Amino acid sequence: MTTMADRRLARVALTWLTEPGTWSVHRLVDRLGPVATLDLLLDGGAPDRALRSTVAARSAGGDARAAAEQALARTERLGARVVTPEDDEWPARVANLRRLILPGAERRVDLETAPPLCFWVRGAWPLGQALDRSVAVVGARAATPYGTHVATELGYGLADRDWTVVSGGAFGIDSAAHRGALTAGGVTVAVLACGVDRPYPMGNAALFDRIADSGLLVSEWLPGADPLRPRFLIRNRVIAAGTLGTVLVEAAARSGATQTLNRAIGVGRPGMVVPGPVTSAMSVGAHELLREQPKARLVTGVAHVLEEVGRIGDDLAPPVRAPERLRDRLDDEAVQVLEALPRRKALGLDSVAARAGVDLRTAMRKLSMLEELAVVVRRDDGYALAPPTEKGGAPKAGS
Amino acid sequence: MTTMADRRLARVALTWLTEPGTWSVHRLVDRLGPVATLDLLLDGGAPDRALRSTVAARSAGGDARAAAEQALARTERLGARVVTPEDDEWPARVANLRRLILPGAERRVDLETAPPLCFWVRGAWPLGQALDRSVAVVGARAATPYGTHVATELGYGLADRDWTVVSGGAFGIDSAAHRGALTAGGVTVAVLACGVDRPYPMGNAALFDRIADSGLLVSEWLPGADPLRPRFLIRNRVIAAGTLGTVLVEAAARSGATQTLNRAIGVGRPGMVVPGPVTSAMSVGAHELLREQPKARLVTGVAHVLEEVGRIGDDLAPPVRAPERLRDRLDDEAVQVLEALPRRKALGLDSVAARAGVDLRTAMRKLSMLEELAVVVRRDDGYALAPPTEKGGAPKAGS
Repeated sequence: MTTMADRRLARVALTWLTEPGTWSVHRLVDRLGPVATLDLLLDGGAPDRALRSTVAARSAGGDARAAAEQALARTERLGARVVTPEDDEWPARVANLRRLILPGAERRVDLETAPPLCFWVRGAWPLGQALDRSVAVVGARAATPYGTHVATELGYGLADRDWTVVSGGAFGIDSAAHRGALTAGGVTVAVLACGVDRPYPMGNAALFDRIADSGLLVSEWLPGADPLRPRFLIRNRVIAAGTLGTVLVEAAARSGATQTLNRAIGVGRPGMVVPGPVTSAMSVGAHELLREQPKARLVTGVAHVLEEVGRIGDDLAPPVRAPERLRDRLDDEAVQVLEALPRRKALGLDSVAARAGVDLRTAMRKLSMLEELAVVVRRDDGYALAPPTEKGGAPKAGS
Repeated sequence: MTTMADRRLARVALTWLTEPGTWSVHRLVDRLGPVATLDLLLDGGAPDRALRSTVAARSAGGDARAAAEQALARTERLGARVVTPEDDEWPARVANLRRLILPGAERRVDLETAPPLCFWVRGAWPLGQALDRSVAVVGARAATPYGTHVATELGYGLADRDWTVVSGGAFGIDSAAHRGALTAGGVTVAVLACGVDRPYPMGNAALFDRIADSGLLVSEWLPGADPLRPRFLIRNRVIAAGTLGTVLVEAAARSGATQTLNRAIGVGRPGMVVPGPVTSAMSVGAHELLREQPKARLVTGVAHVLEEVGRIGDDLAPPVRAPERLRDRLDDEAVQVLEALPRRKALGLDSVAARAGVDLRTAMRKLSMLEELAVVVRRDDGYALAPPTEKGGAPKAGS
């Protein structure tokens, strides 16, 4: 009998020992569980030569179990956590990666597309809940002002309708989508190709902090892991499979973003593409997809995106928001106070009053009332919206 | 027995008496010929009430045969001509309009899509030959600089590859496409919704003169006919059916240009659409078509367009140009002189010499040689390229 802690440690050790997405590892874990798989691999029993040599090479650098224990300790110090399929917050949808067979695949990143072993997560939202109503927005790093504008609008529009925005952590379209979602006070998830403690690119460090604050930073790699080039492509399958659909905004010909879109279509999710001027090199990849990928769907804005994902989303949990009727029960000043509270942070009384545009005494009275209704909680650092309940009925400022 | 002149006159009279595209007239002409059809209609024998009342109303304004005779005289004075299905230059492809059944059609312009009875043509090229390798470029009047740029490039690129550009006569995309073709020294055809002597819009009068000079002005309406609103939509079916494919560049939602594209698809021709920024109202119609018309094909430039029409065009006459080897037989100065000659105009000896950058004596000598090769003709107004031969082997400056 293995304990859950043993299994978690084994998954971390397996991640340290092999690269995420490796099919042979996934199949062993499926059959034997993570602990026996780890034992088998460390005993040199990997079923294929490629895996045996990977395990041997990494084992030469240290002890896998010790490395996993260190990683878990470091994870805790970071205020992050490891999420495994045994956890409630595991995003079940990534299991659809089992379906991802890419015709004519030759490169490792196209062949090794197995579901993740575990995730590192930074941020307060349960991962599965955050991804439940989510759309990926991906595209070029070297985005044009047009692409940046469109991605920001999409991020804003999706978040504003209580959809989670998912993207990578790159400059350009990724950052614009996150910023749009943050501006709307929404939940945004950055899926990284390195450790959740490695702000890469460095220039996005402040953005990552904001994302961790009101959304999630997610990675399949151990803290401290380097953003190696192939990892971005391995990571893309999680963006594609963890969301209900992927929108591509600007991409050069045959870029990483077009790969993500093809992955999304490969797991049966809507692959959506925003067109652009034919005079722009940054829309060449988008137009190529629209010409050559029969399932790619042209979208021009958030309404079209929701039309596509809505079909899949019909039987999903309702949006993460307060019951419609709560607001009707509140007077105007209480609504103002509620709306003044940010999604994931606490605010001091002064700040709440200032943002709500009411005097201190009124703010205090309304906050007490909202606390009684279990919509607001008092914490050491001030007042905050109550955390999401089991059923996903978290209150949202403004609803 | 009716003569060809009788039949031509009858077709003109029928055009005066009814509106182009009327199915009942087309069917009668098919069965009885134009002369007997005209007799029948003038005797009040139209098969349906709508047609009977149209004929009665127009007949009240004058005698159809007399009006047709006046129209033919006016046509001749204009230096224009009437082209009927009995003429060699009739563009056979417009007969495909027989196939154009529009599902759910209710409006007259959607119901009455019969092939034309005759055309008025201004310009030297035989109509059928000009349309043989032709692509329509259509779009918004209120085009943006982006759309204008794309349409000009398409017009230039098509003409440069010896394809005829076909469009309407409007500002915006139509004009840009014509200008591009003219800049490339190519053949461009404006299909008008009014008489070929009516420059509409007036602001395009100079453009129409240039088109008549090196391409064609074409209309189904009598000289002097007004550009009535429904006529633009009736005209569109000729642009769609007379060409090998239609490209739409910029269109507002549900505009006339989107109708032309649907007509092209309706007669089995490629319907191509240039996308644009999703932030532009002038690309809404384009994106709508790409989303909702399954046969609409996204194209980003002339290479994509030729890929589409090329499939249809494989068994067509070769491009209208001099045999490749002619040029090899000429010395450099002869080539310079040949290239100095415009496509459709004659030039005096002085002008030829100046444009070719050779002295008068050389110009004279080379022109005589080219005349002997039947590539150049001497006319009252100077030297000109020899007119296209029966087989379409017209020489082209620069080829």
